[in-house]
Amino acid sequence: MPRFGQPQPVSDKGLLAFDPVTEADRRAEQAMRRVLAREVPEHGIHGEEHGLHLASAPYRWVLDPIDGTRAYISGFPTWVTLIALLFEGEPLLGLIDAPAVGVTVLGLVCDAGAHRAGAYRIEGRGIEGRAFRPLATRPCPSLDRATLATTGPELLPSPAILKAWWRACARSRLQRYGGDGFAYALLARGLIDGVVEAGLKPYDLAAPLAVVRAAGGLATSFDGGDPLQSGQVIAAGDPRVHAALRLLFASAR
Amino acid sequence: MPRFGQPQPVSDKGLLAFDPVTEADRRAEQAMRRVLAREVPEHGIHGEEHGLHLASAPYRWVLDPIDGTRAYISGFPTWVTLIALLFEGEPLLGLIDAPAVGVTVLGLVCDAGAHRAGAYRIEGRGIEGRAFRPLATRPCPSLDRATLATTGPELLPSPAILKAWWRACARSRLQRYGGDGFAYALLARGLIDGVVEAGLKPYDLAAPLAVVRAAGGLATSFDGGDPLQSGQVIAAGDPRVHAALRLLFASAR
Repeated sequence: MPRFGQPQPVSDKGLLAFDPVTEADRRAEQAMRRVLAREVPEHGIHGEEHGLHLASAPYRWVLDPIDGTRAYISGFPTWVTLIALLFEGEPLLGLIDAPAVGVTVLGLVCDAGAHRAGAYRIEGRGIEGRAFRPLATRPCPSLDRATLATTGPELLPSPAILKAWWRACARSRLQRYGGDGFAYALLARGLIDGVVEAGLKPYDLAAPLAVVRAAGGLATSFDGGDPLQSGQVIAAGDPRVHAALRLLFASAR
Repeated sequence: MPRFGQPQPVSDKGLLAFDPVTEADRRAEQAMRRVLAREVPEHGIHGEEHGLHLASAPYRWVLDPIDGTRAYISGFPTWVTLIALLFEGEPLLGLIDAPAVGVTVLGLVCDAGAHRAGAYRIEGRGIEGRAFRPLATRPCPSLDRATLATTGPELLPSPAILKAWWRACARSRLQRYGGDGFAYALLARGLIDGVVEAGLKPYDLAAPLAVVRAAGGLATSFDGGDPLQSGQVIAAGDPRVHAALRLLFASAR
């Protein structure tokens, strides 16, 4: 946060397109890794910036210190920190934290301590002051009533997928861009109805998947499979919107 | 702000496309009109939701209570309140306030009270606690180093303008969407390099124009004329980026 909205050096780690990374990405991941090394040294860690640690551990933390570095360096506040815990490859919990907006959303796939499985908005600061407010996706009867989001048309990785996105735009009520992982928190809060993305890495997806599913939504790849395998995701709060989007994207490669 | 992020009734005031308006839009404008009626009853007012008052007054306040209602109803925090003061049609000052992000930017076209002409970020609360931090656009030598923004491809009002936007995307470094009036505050803060939009109303543009110009940027219509007349704007922090964008959009109708 102290570096957000400040001019700062940006490195380009992209091969073809511009893919920025900053000192804030690297340091935020180091800070999370220090906490995990102290608290759960036997767990594995897979982070966007600093790679894989203890690859064979059954529990693995998946970290994206700044999902939406393009937004971060441009002063747009919708970048998020993503944290997921996987057990043998399956997400157990996911956290989407948008510090510049003051929104923190947690998805618990199963009961954990005092908290039942479900999605929560965490409000307040400090262990004592924190409140967990339950969240749920909203019903939406059909695509023509839906608000859809994707991070940017330029990030959809093929002409066929882009074409399917424009078809989905023409058939839906409202489209929003620039969300990165924040869009999945809006889906879990029942403020939008669908998110479609492709070309994502496991650290972009693990936490959003847990959050959306814990809030009652559906998230699959275009063919109904596992988004973590394909890097594609159709996430929706209502199964009717999910089915309509799957029809539009099923044949897009 | 109390209604932001809450489920709420949305009316559609659009003729062709979905154009949402909420009780928050109407009430925020009423609140501003009450202050103006008390403080400067002889001034005119032109508001998005409640029309024109004292049309022949030389001083006119131009109000957009929520610029970015599409973002507002979807939980995206980049909606803004826009306030401008015009003297005989020319912007004297503009204010862009993004309460969900905590960013307030003021552009003074000429000296006003204790403050010199220029753009400022207003920090802190209350008359006493407020600080004015000067802002300026950043230099950018060429389009291929530039970060560009537009609110959404679906809001560009013709195929030719959309095509020119995609050409600008292909030649620039980074593109951002979903900014509404917030994007002009980022331009004034030197965090992005250009904004291109069309089909805008005077209340969408008056405050952003004052802010961008006060911060040292350029803002014209595609043909170099007045954005308030055409509803088109090419705004840039560096004249080299402005010139490159004008070349791309000059023939787009």
